[in-house]
Amino acid sequence: MKQSEALLTLPTKTPAQASMKALVYHGPGRRSWEEKPRPTVRDATDAVVRVTTATICGTDLHILKGDVPTVSDGRILGHEGIGVVEETGAAVAGFKRGDRVLISCITSCGKCDFCKKGMYSHCRGGGWVLGHKIDGTQAEYVRIPHADTSLYRLPPGVDEEALVMLSDIFPTGFECGVLNGQVKPGDTVAIVGAGPIGLATLLTAQFYSPAELVMVDLDPNRLAVARTLGATQLVDGRDGKAVDKVMELSAGAGVDVAIEAVGIPSTFDVCQKIVAPGGRIANVGVHGKPVSLELERLWAHNITLTTRLVDTVSTPMLLKLVQSGRLQPQKLVTHRFGLGDVMRAYDVFGNAAREQALKVVLKSA
Amino acid sequence: MKQSEALLTLPTKTPAQASMKALVYHGPGRRSWEEKPRPTVRDATDAVVRVTTATICGTDLHILKGDVPTVSDGRILGHEGIGVVEETGAAVAGFKRGDRVLISCITSCGKCDFCKKGMYSHCRGGGWVLGHKIDGTQAEYVRIPHADTSLYRLPPGVDEEALVMLSDIFPTGFECGVLNGQVKPGDTVAIVGAGPIGLATLLTAQFYSPAELVMVDLDPNRLAVARTLGATQLVDGRDGKAVDKVMELSAGAGVDVAIEAVGIPSTFDVCQKIVAPGGRIANVGVHGKPVSLELERLWAHNITLTTRLVDTVSTPMLLKLVQSGRLQPQKLVTHRFGLGDVMRAYDVFGNAAREQALKVVLKSA
Amino acid sequence: MKQSEALLTLPTKTPAQASMKALVYHGPGRRSWEEKPRPTVRDATDAVVRVTTATICGTDLHILKGDVPTVSDGRILGHEGIGVVEETGAAVAGFKRGDRVLISCITSCGKCDFCKKGMYSHCRGGGWVLGHKIDGTQAEYVRIPHADTSLYRLPPGVDEEALVMLSDIFPTGFECGVLNGQVKPGDTVAIVGAGPIGLATLLTAQFYSPAELVMVDLDPNRLAVARTLGATQLVDGRDGKAVDKVMELSAGAGVDVAIEAVGIPSTFDVCQKIVAPGGRIANVGVHGKPVSLELERLWAHNITLTTRLVDTVSTPMLLKLVQSGRLQPQKLVTHRFGLGDVMRAYDVFGNAAREQALKVVLKSA
Amino acid sequence: MKQSEALLTLPTKTPAQASMKALVYHGPGRRSWEEKPRPTVRDATDAVVRVTTATICGTDLHILKGDVPTVSDGRILGHEGIGVVEETGAAVAGFKRGDRVLISCITSCGKCDFCKKGMYSHCRGGGWVLGHKIDGTQAEYVRIPHADTSLYRLPPGVDEEALVMLSDIFPTGFECGVLNGQVKPGDTVAIVGAGPIGLATLLTAQFYSPAELVMVDLDPNRLAVARTLGATQLVDGRDGKAVDKVMELSAGAGVDVAIEAVGIPSTFDVCQKIVAPGGRIANVGVHGKPVSLELERLWAHNITLTTRLVDTVSTPMLLKLVQSGRLQPQKLVTHRFGLGDVMRAYDVFGNAAREQALKVVLKSA
Repeated sequence: MKQSEALLTLPTKTPAQASMKALVYHGPGRRSWEEKPRPTVRDATDAVVRVTTATICGTDLHILKGDVPTVSDGRILGHEGIGVVEETGAAVAGFKRGDRVLISCITSCGKCDFCKKGMYSHCRGGGWVLGHKIDGTQAEYVRIPHADTSLYRLPPGVDEEALVMLSDIFPTGFECGVLNGQVKPGDTVAIVGAGPIGLATLLTAQFYSPAELVMVDLDPNRLAVARTLGATQLVDGRDGKAVDKVMELSAGAGVDVAIEAVGIPSTFDVCQKIVAPGGRIANVGVHGKPVSLELERLWAHNITLTTRLVDTVSTPMLLKLVQSGRLQPQKLVTHRFGLGDVMRAYDVFGNAAREQALKVVLKSA
Repeated sequence: MKQSEALLTLPTKTPAQASMKALVYHGPGRRSWEEKPRPTVRDATDAVVRVTTATICGTDLHILKGDVPTVSDGRILGHEGIGVVEETGAAVAGFKRGDRVLISCITSCGKCDFCKKGMYSHCRGGGWVLGHKIDGTQAEYVRIPHADTSLYRLPPGVDEEALVMLSDIFPTGFECGVLNGQVKPGDTVAIVGAGPIGLATLLTAQFYSPAELVMVDLDPNRLAVARTLGATQLVDGRDGKAVDKVMELSAGAGVDVAIEAVGIPSTFDVCQKIVAPGGRIANVGVHGKPVSLELERLWAHNITLTTRLVDTVSTPMLLKLVQSGRLQPQKLVTHRFGLGDVMRAYDVFGNAAREQALKVVLKSA
Repeated sequence: MKQSEALLTLPTKTPAQASMKALVYHGPGRRSWEEKPRPTVRDATDAVVRVTTATICGTDLHILKGDVPTVSDGRILGHEGIGVVEETGAAVAGFKRGDRVLISCITSCGKCDFCKKGMYSHCRGGGWVLGHKIDGTQAEYVRIPHADTSLYRLPPGVDEEALVMLSDIFPTGFECGVLNGQVKPGDTVAIVGAGPIGLATLLTAQFYSPAELVMVDLDPNRLAVARTLGATQLVDGRDGKAVDKVMELSAGAGVDVAIEAVGIPSTFDVCQKIVAPGGRIANVGVHGKPVSLELERLWAHNITLTTRLVDTVSTPMLLKLVQSGRLQPQKLVTHRFGLGDVMRAYDVFGNAAREQALKVVLKSA
Repeated sequence: MKQSEALLTLPTKTPAQASMKALVYHGPGRRSWEEKPRPTVRDATDAVVRVTTATICGTDLHILKGDVPTVSDGRILGHEGIGVVEETGAAVAGFKRGDRVLISCITSCGKCDFCKKGMYSHCRGGGWVLGHKIDGTQAEYVRIPHADTSLYRLPPGVDEEALVMLSDIFPTGFECGVLNGQVKPGDTVAIVGAGPIGLATLLTAQFYSPAELVMVDLDPNRLAVARTLGATQLVDGRDGKAVDKVMELSAGAGVDVAIEAVGIPSTFDVCQKIVAPGGRIANVGVHGKPVSLELERLWAHNITLTTRLVDTVSTPMLLKLVQSGRLQPQKLVTHRFGLGDVMRAYDVFGNAAREQALKVVLKSA
């Protein structure tokens, strides 16, 4: 608190001179926790947020593998976080210094054609830019463009650990998997992939009361977690018989909704083979290769296949459900680190299976 | 008429003795117009219909090529037709002898789980069976199972030539292409394939007032027809540059709806390359091979891809629009034959490009 | 059981001679448990069902008050029940003697224009006819027209007490209240009226995970029950301040969904005063008078008001959710009687407040 | 051009000194065309627009009658217009001086909860404010708050006379009447009221290809206009038999959609009496009194009743359809005046029946 007050009373300090610590990408395989200039308001619609809680996403690991060439050397990673507004540009109307905010992984201008359609993911002046095309949240401070439409006020009395899950994985699981999959009461739903995104999908699929929630994975530990989070059937696919097992569970009918939450051809293939006539395949996974779509069979099956980069349009709703206690995203948090320990946190998260890690939370001191 | 009266007054005549002429499949490449026993009511829900107008579908050509192994030697082909009810089973409540009816290409029991969901195409006791698993409409008489839910009363004062188009291609183009593609006012819609189904899609897409209707084909004659039927842009794909041309027409944005109306990988590929973020790909074509789906790009494009075997749930609506004059399906009829000339009609329809044929109509004497 | 076997072995017994006991309406205020002829198959689509479990609906009380003039003297009451198929007509394909079935309060032919649209309530050959225009279920046997589309096979292993709630009140609460009200995750929902229908609405609203479920009633006992069934806020309206209290609970915003589950002008009025801009008013109650709709205020509030006679299209889904354990309709059962005690059961149900009765179940010996 | 340059090069001129002419409300019955200070940018999100085309709305007449007490003495009227951007605030990103723009009757901030849901009409910092709570468009210049989300760039090559119709009446007719009424292909639609809004509804209802479009009014001239604009049936209600006539036209079935475009109890009553079971009543009219809703009959009719203040979410789509030529809103323009003749224009528009006036267009010199 004292520190904040100090900042408050020392507005004359030139921001350009200030520095901070941040997790910086230096090309495939290389990251460091290093000194960087503290960000300042650049555009009138910017806010600068002091990060109090952050987390690491599977996408950050992809970046570090070099799979995302649009990320350049020197970029501060991270697109999930919670913090306190430090400074706002002249055109920011909804937030002021001191407000506690959730940072959305998707930046939206609120004005372009895509934003007006609720497709913030394709915002012409935003989209997924944090920790990607501009510096991200795994740092002491972060600059958030279009703050009015890219930040959310925190509901009172809810733990940051729960809320930081709403920066990305819960809207992603919900929008790309549950909403796009049109999960309905009484449905049989299969989720292929029990990683953090698959589990967030599992939790939010329950908003619509499916009759059966089948979780498919290769990792018995993750399947066991899925059971505690509401899966009614578990399918261990290590024997290559996931399709047969799901068909058997559904008495040969197949599933109403098959949600792909891995991002590789073989899991997509499971989905297209288990979906019932009239069913939906909702793709959540980030794919690096094309897949073979069995149109010679599916053309006559009245199926719907959807893809989606999360738009985070559901964030206000998710905040309400966390606040009311109906959604408990903190159930996915397995490890906690200080923000300064982010290098070690990456080591743990990068060995998720061995470490039995789901989400790791980073907290500022 | 006299003949009908004779039938009416001679109920004792054994139906098994009566015969008729029909177009019969005898294995790949072989068809004949031959004598067959006249069908009779077998189940209480059956009707026997005297065919007055029929037509030939592209699917009939596929059958003749041997592409549909579920069709066996001796099968009477045809799943489109109009006629007069000759005889009804005891449980038929909605039709009686003498009623003029439209025969739906899809037979539905009206009772099973799929029928209750409006997915008649997957009816557990029906679906596409006419001219496939049971004898069809290219004959003087046809038996229609589940008559109450598989026949439609003709509106008065409308030509049979227009109405027979509602047995299959208009519901198919509309449901699989337009409804599934969610065509909306102001949309830019591309239809890939200007055959009869593509053109039926073109006509019914206009129910929703798209701003642009782009027709893509390799046949200049069919493109010219498309222009007269409402296409606002024509793309001749013979130079292999259909994708580039559509992207240019849409100022680089891509189309809101891409409708695949051919059924081969290359036309599917055009669709996936021209669809805008947030857009829909609606598959209408019957495919014989898998396609490569570019999930490595599309996973983030918020697209929806649908497949569908026509359910013919839209038939009552289409009948209304034909009756009100807003839909003129007869525009697709290019050739007319007597039913007895069906062998020649197949020759013409089988050389559609050379003959500039779209739909050929068969009329009983 | 012995009786059934006797029937089985005595098929020659003329059905017209058989008799049974039934609850018969004899004009306003008059009912008796008396001997009536046992029903037989009349039409080919009929089934006769031996009733094993029945219940009494608030509508039956309305009939006894003389509020439903379409019910004539001599009518057997009741439109809810479970039983065993005794006999089927020639055209019944889905059920056979011995099948255990749920009887829907709505009879549907499955063939007419309304049935094809899923509006079974307005079926041209059915709708609500049981215990209304034809004899009903509060009897040892009942004839069910259009059996294939008006009966449902019971899932194995589920208690009849739970399932009989699916004849009417659960589809009614769900379809008229929850579906029409478009309850969505995160919504604030108010249900005005905590009678059996209001409570069925409360239980099924939870299929969609609203953030707040406000129950409004005048009876503290029923409010207390509502609390145990998932209401998050209770509003006792006895002081005439229900509107103020709901507005306060919602921080002045009003509710997303207001569900009218009583059927009188004053409760409708509460609904129209508490609904937020953009919200929905779903009417479930049976009204006897017009209401004053405040269009001078609501014209600009972007609200949607719906009415509906239950269609029972959701019955298959509800059966799945009961079977999976997610829905427990038996929670509404407060009293149990033998079918022969139906006169006493009416006395109790007719004094629901004093008896703290919700649903009374009638079981055959 | 020279003038613009002059303005551009003389930024030192104090804006407060500049004046303009405007149509000013001075309490019930009193309006004048008088000198007012020219508006300037007040907030960073403002734009000042030089009005080139405006029009008068029925609502302006209501204001002049004193029906809208929220309009205070001294207010410049008008919420429809087209113009050229004169000046923009620092935070306006999408428009610059010289841009030709359509002014939406609804001002939206693009940031609040209502705007994010597309309910711009209830924007917490906007909504209908122009010519209501702030000065409007019947003036040489107008200040537009939240310019980025309240102005639309004009498509090239389209006449301003057509486009100014998109400020209010076309989005209103389309959103409140057609979208809310869920007009579908094949529907029978009745529009009660053939004033400008009713006729805009008539034109935009055709986007969805209803089978029948019934127009109901008391003015034979307006009915004749409706015929030329696509009405398939006309009902003159002067004999008080509109309900009987519509029921007869629909063979006793009633209409799928009844659109109220007047705003008085008697026309609402026509709507509730002609709507078919399963149908929709879409209220467009501005009401000053409550109406009696026949819930004692409608509770069982599965109807949907909607209200809405226009959100103008459909403006981009309407612009596309005007540009493509599918919508020709200029068909409603009957009179044209110079902006300086606005007093006379009001006289004509205020006597619409006698003058056979629909929309009057005001053009700057």
